Amino acid sequence: MHKTKAEILTIGDEILYGQITDTNSQWMSAELDKVGIKTVRKTTVSDSREDILKSFEEAESRANIILITGGLGPTNDDLTKPCLAEYFGCDIEMNEKALQELTSFFQEKGRELTEINRQQAALPTCCEMVSNILGTAAGMWFERNGKVFVSMPGVPHEMKRMMTDTIIPKLQQVFNTDIIYHKIIKTIGIGESWLAEMIKDWEDNLPEHIKLAYLPSMGQVRLRLTAVGNDRSLLESEVNDQVTALHNYVSKYIYGYDDDSIEAVIGQILTTQNKTLAIAESCTGGYISHLVTRIPGSSSYFRGSLIPYHNDLKIGILGVEKETLEADGAVSEATVMEMANNVRRQLGADIGVASSGIAGPNGGTAEKPVGTVWIAFADGEQTITKKLQLWKDREVNIKATAIAVLNLIRISLLEKQE
Amino acid sequence: MHKTKAEILTIGDEILYGQITDTNSQWMSAELDKVGIKTVRKTTVSDSREDILKSFEEAESRANIILITGGLGPTNDDLTKPCLAEYFGCDIEMNEKALQELTSFFQEKGRELTEINRQQAALPTCCEMVSNILGTAAGMWFERNGKVFVSMPGVPHEMKRMMTDTIIPKLQQVFNTDIIYHKIIKTIGIGESWLAEMIKDWEDNLPEHIKLAYLPSMGQVRLRLTAVGNDRSLLESEVNDQVTALHNYVSKYIYGYDDDSIEAVIGQILTTQNKTLAIAESCTGGYISHLVTRIPGSSSYFRGSLIPYHNDLKIGILGVEKETLEADGAVSEATVMEMANNVRRQLGADIGVASSGIAGPNGGTAEKPVGTVWIAFADGEQTITKKLQLWKDREVNIKATAIAVLNLIRISLLEKQE
Repeated sequence: MHKTKAEILTIGDEILYGQITDTNSQWMSAELDKVGIKTVRKTTVSDSREDILKSFEEAESRANIILITGGLGPTNDDLTKPCLAEYFGCDIEMNEKALQELTSFFQEKGRELTEINRQQAALPTCCEMVSNILGTAAGMWFERNGKVFVSMPGVPHEMKRMMTDTIIPKLQQVFNTDIIYHKIIKTIGIGESWLAEMIKDWEDNLPEHIKLAYLPSMGQVRLRLTAVGNDRSLLESEVNDQVTALHNYVSKYIYGYDDDSIEAVIGQILTTQNKTLAIAESCTGGYISHLVTRIPGSSSYFRGSLIPYHNDLKIGILGVEKETLEADGAVSEATVMEMANNVRRQLGADIGVASSGIAGPNGGTAEKPVGTVWIAFADGEQTITKKLQLWKDREVNIKATAIAVLNLIRISLLEKQE
Repeated sequence: MHKTKAEILTIGDEILYGQITDTNSQWMSAELDKVGIKTVRKTTVSDSREDILKSFEEAESRANIILITGGLGPTNDDLTKPCLAEYFGCDIEMNEKALQELTSFFQEKGRELTEINRQQAALPTCCEMVSNILGTAAGMWFERNGKVFVSMPGVPHEMKRMMTDTIIPKLQQVFNTDIIYHKIIKTIGIGESWLAEMIKDWEDNLPEHIKLAYLPSMGQVRLRLTAVGNDRSLLESEVNDQVTALHNYVSKYIYGYDDDSIEAVIGQILTTQNKTLAIAESCTGGYISHLVTRIPGSSSYFRGSLIPYHNDLKIGILGVEKETLEADGAVSEATVMEMANNVRRQLGADIGVASSGIAGPNGGTAEKPVGTVWIAFADGEQTITKKLQLWKDREVNIKATAIAVLNLIRISLLEKQE
C-alpha cells in the first residue's frame, strides 16, 4: 500500500554509546509522515566503515528513501562522506558551489576559513550538493535506480532547515505517495488503562482503515488515529467524525489535538478570556515559567514569576506569613494558597498559581515523603488547591508537577467559562 | 575484540511516525557501556507482527544481547508479548508471580485492578518474569543458545529501574566482557572546528588504542576519549595522562568531565566559594532557574529568581529605573546591569545574574534583530556584561542564552579565585 518507504540512518558512536540523544529522527519521520512518506525503520550505526557500508546496503533493500544524518563534521572521526563516495563509486573533489557558500558563510560571521573547514567543501563527484545556510557541512543528494540517498549534518537546526527548504519538496517531486491522515487527540489527567476502559466501545467500533494507538507520557495520554486511503478530504472527515464520537466518552480529559501543547492551550484560553497569569514556583524552580514562555507571544498574557526557593524569601519577596510557614511548613496547603494569592496580587495578574513540594532525592520526612507536592490556583474569587503524591525521582517530580499546575489552570478557567 | 554485543530494539509506530522521541535507548546504551557491553546497533520498528519478528531474527544474527522496549502496554496495539511467544515457540499463560505483584501494586495505589490490567500478568511460559515495581507491565527475560532477549516497558522510569535493579546485574553474570574505558572532557564557549585546530597536535599524537570523538551540542563541545584493553587501571591512567596533556592546549574551555553538567559545576564552585546565587530572567523565562534547580541540593546556594517578563515589572518588582528602560530599552546593557545588581540585592545573594533579549520569532527591530541578547553578572564589586547575537529560533535562543549565563558565572567566579 505504501509505495514510498523511508529509512532513517543515524551515524555516530556518540549515539550508540549513549552520550547524546537522537532527536533528529523523530522530527524527520514526523515531517516525512506529513507528506505521506512512511518511515519503515530507524537505524543507528557506529562510526565504522564496515557498519556504515552494510547499513547502506540493508537500508536500500528495505526503502526507496534513505535519509542519513551525522558523521559530516570537520573532524577525523567523521566517515559518512568517504563511505558514500565508496558506496556510489566516485571520487571526492572540491565542489566549487560548496566552497563558495562556505566562504561567504565565514565572511558573514567575520571568521577566518580554516583549512579543516575548507575540506568540508570537497564532495563526492556523483552527488548533488545541497546548501546548508546555517552551517559548514553541505548536504549530499544521491539518486540511483529509483532510490534516493540524502546525507545531512547532524546539527538539528541545520538539518531541519535543509529538510524544509530542499529535501522534502524534492522528495515530493520525485515520489508519488499514498495519503496517510493522522489526528492526535491529547488527554491529560487520566491513566492509559483507565482511559482504555472508558473508550472501549468506541475503539471496538472503529472502521477497518482507521487505527488507534495510545501514546502515554508524563501525566498525559495521546490517542493517535491513523487513516489510510486515497482521498484526503474523505479521510479527514471520517477521522473527525470519530473524534466527535470520542468526546461523548472522555470530553473533560481532552485538551487539544496534534501539535497542541498544554502550555499553548492555556495561552489560548487566557487570551480568549483576556486574563493574565503570574506564577510562584518553589519545587518546580522555574520549569512552569519555562513551559509558559516557550510559547511565542506568551508575553501578552504572562506577567511574570517569583521563585522564592529559599524559605525566608517566601516571606521576604512573596509575603507568605511567618506563622503559616512555622505552623504548617513550606510544603502545605496553607503556604501554597498564600503563594498563589500573593503572586497574583504582587504581579498584578488575574490568575496566580503556585507549587511547593519535596522534589527529592532528599528532604523527605515520615509525614511528608519525597514526592509530596501542593499546588494552587487563585483568581481573586476562589483558591483551588490540590495535593499530589508523586515519585522518588527529582526530574520526574518537577515535570509532573508542572503538568499538573498547567492542567489545574485549564480546568479552573474552563469551569468558570461554563 | 568485543565478544559481547548488544542491540537495542525499540518497538512502536509512535516513534517511527515521530510522535514521541526515544530517550530510552540513549540511557540504555550508556548503562551497557559502563559495564563493557558495546551497543552495536539501535533499531526502531513498527507495531507490525512481520517487522517485529524480522527484527528479532536480524538482531539475533548481530548481537548476543537484544534489549527490547515498548509494545507492552495494556492496549490492543501492543504486539511485543505475542511476537516473543511466537519467536520462542511457547504459549502465553497467567503468571502467578506477575499477577501477585500487579495486584499489590494496585492495592498500594488504592486503585481497582481492571480486566485489561489483569491481562498484563499473562506471560509467555518460556520466559523468566522480571519485576516492575513502578508499573503494570512485567519485564520478560528469554535465553536460548547463548543469546539473551529482554523485553521491558517503554515508560522511562519503569525501564530504568528494571535495568538497574535486575537486567544489568544479570547480564554481568551471564556474559564476560572486554573493558572499554571512556572519559568525556566537556568544553564550553568554543566551536568544534576552532577547538579541533587548537588541539590538532595533541590529537595526532594519541596512541593507537585511544580514540577521540567530537560531540558538539548547544554552546558546548564534548571530547570523548575511548580506550579499549584488558587492564582497567592501566587504561584509566593512560587516558588521564592524555587529559592532563590536553589541558596545556585548551584549559580555560574545559569545565568538567563525564556526567558533569555546567549547572552542577557551578553548584560546586558556589559551594566551594560559599556563595549564593540569585537570577533575574527575562527572555529565558525561567529556563536558567530550571537548570540550576535540577541539581539536587541546589537549595543550599540558590536563593531564588525574579522573572519580570512584562516590562512594567522590571520596574515594579525588580526596581529597574524607568529612565533606563525609556532611554535604552529592555534589551540593553544598562537594563541587564541593573537587573543583575538589583536581583542580587533584593534576594540577598552574593551573586546576581540576568538575561534580557529578543527570543523571537517576533519582536525584532533593525538595530535589535531577533537573537539579540544581553547577559550580566554582578557580585557587588563588579558587573560583567556580554552581548550575544544568536539565531532566529526561539527555543534555541532561550537555551543558548542559559548556557552562556551559566558559563559567565563559571568564568567570573574562577577568575576571582585566581
